[in-house]
Formats: sequence, C-alpha cells, structure tokens
Amino acid sequence: MSILNPPRGRGIVAALCFVLLLLVAGIAIAQDAPPPLTDEEMEEATQIYFDRCAGCHGALRGGATGPGLLPEATLVRGVPYLHAIMFGGLPGGMPDFGRQGFLDAEELDLIARFLLLDPPDPPQISMDQIRESWQVYVDVEDRPTEPQHDMDWQDFFGVILRDMGQVAIVDGDSKELVTLLDTGYAIHILRASQSGRYFQSIGRDGRASLIDLWMDPPAVVAEVKPCYDARSIESSKFAGFEDAYAIVGCYWPPLFTIHDGETLEPLKMVSTAGYERGAGNYVPEARVAAIVASHFFPEWIVNVKESGQTWLVDYSTLDQPGQPMPVTMIDTELFLHDGGWANHRYFIVAANALDTLVVIDAETRTVAANVPAGTIPHPGRGANWVHPEYGPVWATGNLGSPEMTVVGAAPDTHPEHAWQVVSSVELPFTGTLFNKTHPESPWVIIDFVMSPSPVGAATLCAIDKVSLEAETCWEVPGAQELGARMVHIEFNRAGTEFWVSAWGRMDTPTFIAVYDAVTLEEVARVEGDWVRTPTGKFNAHNTALDIY
Amino acid sequence: MSILNPPRGRGIVAALCFVLLLLVAGIAIAQDAPPPLTDEEMEEATQIYFDRCAGCHGALRGGATGPGLLPEATLVRGVPYLHAIMFGGLPGGMPDFGRQGFLDAEELDLIARFLLLDPPDPPQISMDQIRESWQVYVDVEDRPTEPQHDMDWQDFFGVILRDMGQVAIVDGDSKELVTLLDTGYAIHILRASQSGRYFQSIGRDGRASLIDLWMDPPAVVAEVKPCYDARSIESSKFAGFEDAYAIVGCYWPPLFTIHDGETLEPLKMVSTAGYERGAGNYVPEARVAAIVASHFFPEWIVNVKESGQTWLVDYSTLDQPGQPMPVTMIDTELFLHDGGWANHRYFIVAANALDTLVVIDAETRTVAANVPAGTIPHPGRGANWVHPEYGPVWATGNLGSPEMTVVGAAPDTHPEHAWQVVSSVELPFTGTLFNKTHPESPWVIIDFVMSPSPVGAATLCAIDKVSLEAETCWEVPGAQELGARMVHIEFNRAGTEFWVSAWGRMDTPTFIAVYDAVTLEEVARVEGDWVRTPTGKFNAHNTALDIY
Repeated sequence: MSILNPPRGRGIVAALCFVLLLLVAGIAIAQDAPPPLTDEEMEEATQIYFDRCAGCHGALRGGATGPGLLPEATLVRGVPYLHAIMFGGLPGGMPDFGRQGFLDAEELDLIARFLLLDPPDPPQISMDQIRESWQVYVDVEDRPTEPQHDMDWQDFFGVILRDMGQVAIVDGDSKELVTLLDTGYAIHILRASQSGRYFQSIGRDGRASLIDLWMDPPAVVAEVKPCYDARSIESSKFAGFEDAYAIVGCYWPPLFTIHDGETLEPLKMVSTAGYERGAGNYVPEARVAAIVASHFFPEWIVNVKESGQTWLVDYSTLDQPGQPMPVTMIDTELFLHDGGWANHRYFIVAANALDTLVVIDAETRTVAANVPAGTIPHPGRGANWVHPEYGPVWATGNLGSPEMTVVGAAPDTHPEHAWQVVSSVELPFTGTLFNKTHPESPWVIIDFVMSPSPVGAATLCAIDKVSLEAETCWEVPGAQELGARMVHIEFNRAGTEFWVSAWGRMDTPTFIAVYDAVTLEEVARVEGDWVRTPTGKFNAHNTALDIY
Repeated sequence: MSILNPPRGRGIVAALCFVLLLLVAGIAIAQDAPPPLTDEEMEEATQIYFDRCAGCHGALRGGATGPGLLPEATLVRGVPYLHAIMFGGLPGGMPDFGRQGFLDAEELDLIARFLLLDPPDPPQISMDQIRESWQVYVDVEDRPTEPQHDMDWQDFFGVILRDMGQVAIVDGDSKELVTLLDTGYAIHILRASQSGRYFQSIGRDGRASLIDLWMDPPAVVAEVKPCYDARSIESSKFAGFEDAYAIVGCYWPPLFTIHDGETLEPLKMVSTAGYERGAGNYVPEARVAAIVASHFFPEWIVNVKESGQTWLVDYSTLDQPGQPMPVTMIDTELFLHDGGWANHRYFIVAANALDTLVVIDAETRTVAANVPAGTIPHPGRGANWVHPEYGPVWATGNLGSPEMTVVGAAPDTHPEHAWQVVSSVELPFTGTLFNKTHPESPWVIIDFVMSPSPVGAATLCAIDKVSLEAETCWEVPGAQELGARMVHIEFNRAGTEFWVSAWGRMDTPTFIAVYDAVTLEEVARVEGDWVRTPTGKFNAHNTALDIY
C-alpha cells in the first residue's frame, strides 16, 4: 500500500477530514476578531482614553475635533500604526503622547488594542463618586481674610500650561512667576469669582480646581472631579450670591453639576442628555458648552450644544429643603459652542457648525437675534467696544474664513445697526480662535493659531476700532523657530499691555510676548523653564468683571 | 483488509478526524445560542413587546410588575414554555394573549424567540415621529360651541374597557351606553379638562386621545402617540390656561411631552432620564408617574419615579419664542408612584416601594412631610373628607397590608394631626388599589382587587367616615362566577350613587355594579355585550373638579 496510492476508503476519510478542517479554519477566520482586553486592561484603557483622547475623538469614539476611532476605521490600520501615531503625533493637532513621555510603550500598545474593539459603554458617574473625588486642601476658616502678600493680586494672570496640566500664576506688573499649580489636564478655561479672589480652573479631564489668590503663594484650596471630560466652569455672580456657588459643565457624561463656591462641595447634578430642538431626535451626548453667570437674575446661562437648547439654571433656592432648582429650557440653536457678553447684557454664542451667532438677551431671557457670521465663528468671549458710528459693537473671529465679524450690539441706542454685521474686517489668514480688546486700547488684537500656514499661526493682527481695518499684522519673532503658535490675547488690569502665548511643545520652553496696548511694541517676554505649552491667560480683574 | 481491522494509517486519520469532529461539535455547542431574528422580525417583535409586554416587564426587560425577561431567565425555559404562557396566561395577572386572539401562533412564536435574545436597545422616539402620529379628526373650528345632545354630559362616566382598548361613555343618569370609542391599549387613566368638556385618555401603549363630550355622540377628536409606554396625562388648570395645554408622562422612553390642549399638537418634549437623589446614580429609565395640575401656579407637578424627584413644569411661557419652559427640579423621594389632592392644596404621592406617603405642598412648592403608610400604599387619587375630630383627612389603601391609612391633612386648622396617621382602619383583605368617597356619602368605599383570595377580589368595604371602622363588607354577587375582580369606585355627579367595575376576561361580558351612596344597596347594574374588562371609571364633573 503506497502512500501515493491510498486505498479508496482512506481517501474518503481524508476528504471528509479536509472538509472539516476547512470548516474549522473557516470558523477560525470568522472569529479572527481582535483579542479582547482583560477587565483590568479595559478599565485602564477606558480611563486613559477619557483623560487623553475623548475630548477630541468623542466619548463614544464617533469623532469630534479629531477623527472617529470606531473599529471600522481602526481595524484596517492595526496596532503598530495606531501605536506609531500616538507615539509621534500628527501635524493636525494629534499630540505625540509617546515622544513626550505621557504614555509609555505598554500603555500605547494597550490603547491601540483598545481602539480595535467596539467602544465600551462610556462610564457613568454618580454623586457618590463625585463626593469621593472632592478634596478641600484649605478649610474656609483657615483661609486668609485679606491678601497675605503685597503683590497686586487683581493684576495676576492665570496662565494655562495646557499640556503640562498646570496653571501658572504670573504677576502682571513684574511679569515674574508667582507660583506654579498642578491642576486638571489640558485646562480649558479659567474663570474668576465675582470678588476676583478665586480663580476656578476646569480640565478637559473634568478636574475642577479652586485657586485662592490671597494666599502666599496662591494655592489650590479645593478640587473636585464631577466628570471625565469637561469644558466649562462659572461662578455665581448675582448680587447677594457672589462667590456662593459654582457650576461645572461636562462633555461626558453630559451633565452639569452645582458646587459650593468656596469649597467645591458637590450639591446637585443634572443630566443634559435629551431631545434636540426641531426634529427632536434623542441625543445621548448633548454636551454642555459655554456657561456665563447672569447679572440680571440669580442664574447661569448654560448652552446644551447638541440639543440646540439654552438652559437658565436658577441657583437661588438651592438652600431650601429638597434643593429645588428651576431650569428654564429654551430652544435656541444647534451646536452652541463658545461666546461671551456683548454690551453687558447680551450673551452672544457661536452656533459654530451653522456659521451663526445667537444673541441671548439675559434681561428678557429670550433669543434676541440670530446673526450670520463668517465660516465657523469662534469668539472665545469676543471683543466689545464703542464705535463712533455703530455704537456698542461686539466682534468675533472665524476659524474658517479670513475675517473678523463685527456686530452692532445696542438695540436701545443704535437700533438700525443692532444684530447686523456692520463690518467683516478682512484678514490675512484663517484659523482664528481668539480676539480681544480693552477700553484703554485702540486695537482689537486677533490670532490665527489654527492657520494651516506656520507663518499665519505665528502672526497677530491689530484692528483699528474706528476704521475697522487690520492696520498692522506682524509675525512674532522666534515663534516659528520653536514650532510655536501664537494664541490667546489678554490685557493687563490697566489695559496698557496685552499678552500673547507661544504655544509650543512640552519638551521646549517657549514664551509669552507682552506688547504695549497702544504702540504695539513688544515690551517684554515672559520666559523661563516653566513656560511650556502656554495657551489661555486670564487677568484676575478683567475676568472677574468681564472686561473684553 | 477488514473493516474490523483497519490499517493503522487509516486509524490515525480517523482519530484525527474524530478530534476535529469533536472540535466542530464543541464549537457548535458553544455557539448554541438562540437563532437571531431577521431585521424585520426584530422590528415586529420589538413593537409587539412594547405594546403588550413592556408595561409590566420593563422596557429593558428587567422586570417591574411582572418578572424580568432577560435571557438568563428565559433561556432555561425555552420557546414552547414561553409560547404556552403567552397563549394561556397566568393567575398572577399575565394575560392570555393567545387564547383571547390578541396574538396568533406565529406572533407568539416570534415573541418567544425574541425573549431568548438580549433585549435590543429599546427604541427612542423623535419629535418628527410624534408629529407623524398626531391626528386631528375634528378641527377645533368644526367642533360644537355648545352640547349637541340633551344628556347631562357633566354626569357622563368615561369607563375604561382595559383589555379591549376602548373607552365607553355611559350616561350617569340612565346608565345607558352613550358611545363606545377606540382608544389606546389598556388605558391607564382618564383625566378631564378644567371645563369638563374633554376627557383625555392615555393608553399603556402611549396613545393619547381627546374625547369631546359635547358632540353627539361624543367622539375622539384628536390623537397622538408620544411614546411606547405611558401612564399619565393631565390638562392645564390654572386660571387663564383652562384646557390650553396637556401633558403626557411616559414610561418609555422616559420623558414627558407637552401638547396643545384642544388638538394634542405636540409642542415640547423633555427627557427625564437622569441622576437619582442621594447617591446620584444614573437612571436611564427614570419614568414619569403621577402628574397633577396645580391651581396655585401655571404648572404641573410631575413625579419622576426612579430618580426620586418631583419636577414642577411651568407652561405659562410656552407661547414665547423658543418656547421657554421652567422646570423646577426638587429632590423628594424615590419611587413616587400615584397620588392625588388632599385638602385642595397638598399633592400626596405614594413612594410605594418605601411604604411612605410624600406630601407636596403645591402652594409653597416644597415637601411638607413624609408619612409612613401601610405596606405598599396605593392611593389611586385617595379619598378626602372632614372628620369631626381630626378635621380634613385624606386616606389611602395599601396593596400589601389589610388597612386603610388615614392622614390628617390640615396643618392650618388641625396642626396636631397634620401629616400624622390618625387611623389605620382594619380591613378583611389586602390587595387594595382604590378607595374613594364623595362629600354626599357617609362612606369611603374600598376595593381589594389584587387580593390573592377570589372572595377578597370580589369584596368591597364601606368605611364609616366618623367611626373610621369598616362597618360593612360584602361580596358582590356574580363576580366570582365570572372570574371577575371588583375594582375602582366612582361616584356620580350628585354623589348619590357609586359605581364599581367587575373586571373579567375579554371573552365574557361582566357588569358595573351601581350602589346607593348612603344605604349601600345595589340599585342597578350596567350590563351589555360591550361591558368587557371594565376597570377605571371617571365622572366628568368629579374628575374635572378633583372631587374624591
């Protein structure tokens, strides 16, 4: 019996066997899914994802500022590719987490494998968890009753060192570093309490910190982490409630939380998941964007981005049994993102995906107007001044078009210009995130930080408040060499100088350029080993009093 | 070569093959999951489940009134068992859907297979869908401006024919059927608009119907289906807003919707999913239970059951741009279920899982008290009268203990008894769902419809309003023979008679027994082929004016 000539019977068995083998192989191929993570790995990966990735790629991994990271996008790329991107970053804004030492090789591998799998249900949060995260480092009764140092604390700048997870307190007069504070990761904004004594910072990782500027040195006196991904924080500012409460607006879970203003003790949490205006589809990720505190009522004006609503959150009855809290839900516009006060009364918010500005009248608590802007308006808080012809105006830059949109903002005194675009100031670049001014300066200063051109990203323009022309634009020397983008303008308390950050890489110190608010001459640079990834800067006085 | 003595080579191949076969078989066993449904089957099954099953077994199949139906419970039972139960019903309340012809064999098989699978994400709903479901059968301008018949429409009874999906309008005087109307499935309650002209019905399937009693015959003039599973509906009753708006409270999706009061046009929808009071866990299925319309403010008092909150929903600004709607969120108590007005000012709601009554003061908009009740209090809307010693009192029956709980309800005039249990009236049975009285009757009448004893379920008791004793209890003749349970008491407009339903099976007509409100003698029976599965009955006048 030769092996080359097997008996027929064996041939049949072998053939059958071959079919079975194919079947098994076929099943094996069908099951060639990415290997699952252990429970511990999943927990760790979920946490890292939320801290580092969810802000841009979305809690549900559907994409937002960054691309979607669902398996249909990641599986074709595979672990080595994803690992490499996370190690080295990408020009569009993807950080080089590995090169900068934020995530080690093991963590990068874990996240890459995590990204191949269906995203887990994003974690919820409970009041018990929030309470557990709450820390008071200095009790209220142990805090000073007057400033403990001789510096002009109202001229302090809170400088976000974005990727360092730090806030630097810098003296506006000497421009010296006062202290360096550990805060949440990638602080999105600072706000000041009505008294100006406290800065509140909110990290993209949901960590809120309360900074007491009266201490020597200023210090974080309380912290709380009400969510995994947050963008906004604000203080209560209505007469009688100054510094009494704080609100945090979250991206994930989609909710806002109310806290004691002096301790950050969590008091109340309210989900913002709900139905969008109009078609009324259910939006499980209806995130909280910009919040401002009304001076007309004891309430915050809260934008719920994906449901197209603005909620007026009344904090005046929180001390009663059952903590009753009236929330007035108004249909405004989809995708309300950022904005600020115009003419002390109107909260102008960019519906950025609709190229529209929505004007909310805080006194009548209604929508006053929708105003067409440029492409993807991004005001930050915008800029206010009084124009000789148009009266009080407010202006925003635009991410997608090279123009600053100037809007008449005084229906009482200048009704013919109110909520009209009185000028679209021509600019050399797109990519604006911020513009700002001060009553003492004849200029509105504007950045082009997101310009695809490195020259644009390093350039600033000064727009004449009267002629509404970009009279002077200049590339900031040294920025390009450091791979830095010039971002976010803030004036000092007196309005005599403005500061602009050179936002670079974590491994290289950069600088903050300081300019004369009239002559536009550079008068100083804030430098030092600590000046890494500076972005937003907030003057205590100007922030407390909404001067911009 | 004998088959009994195969060559060694073939033996090895066969052995290998056997291992492979085992492997394949093993994989087959490991994959012995229930067969999936096609997309169409899944859609049909989901719809049927929501219409017929979700009310008792939960939208997420986690169980509620009925047991949980997740795969860990259903897989061990299998399709034939589930099919049989759904065909023939169970004594505990499971309907015999098959025997009664509601679901055919194919549908029962489909649902049985559906129940073996993980539940799909329950369907959401959008404003567009709600608008599509909205039907106006008679335009407002085509409706009569005065009653089109000579009957005393304010003495009409709206009788729920629960399992028929119908509401019968019955003349309180002649006790004749006026008309039979198709409505939602298993109507949970009827409410009357402030004028009394309109009945509003809400089906467990989420279908809301507006019934105009002035038409000849009365007719459904508008319908809308804002959700898949609902329990409550209410009209706006504040001065100046009579009949203007309606609200529907839903179980799934968990939300409430606001409608035009005369057309049911959908105007606004608000999710109630959120964070529970206390530990603040996220509750995706925070359902809307009892709602009443305040007479003190232009608002509804809405209980959000699983989050332990009561929301005051202000409808006074819905006509303004953006439809602003203030919702005041108060932490009250978990599992608020049903309740009614006490002493015209206090909304008493049973936190039934906590054996507690929560007293909400509609004038001060706060929680006035928590009162311990019997086991699982179930007031329906409760019963009000003035006791010579205790003053105004309010009473509830209890599902789990044989007692009626009487609570002092007049803090102004009888503060020493207010929010105290002034009496626990001893009763012969448990299983009460409803008690009711009328100012003209010396009795509070109470049912034991959920009593495990057939005698109990057929028995009523009359409690003396002064002695607070169950003076007389009687088994209703003929009920047991029909397999019927006596349920829900309603008085006629004059308060001279009360009606109680014999709730039987769909295939057998039963009756509504009518009693003299003073002598307790049976004076009539409402009978007829149409009297099938009668449950709740609502007198137009008494319901509009909250007389109970």
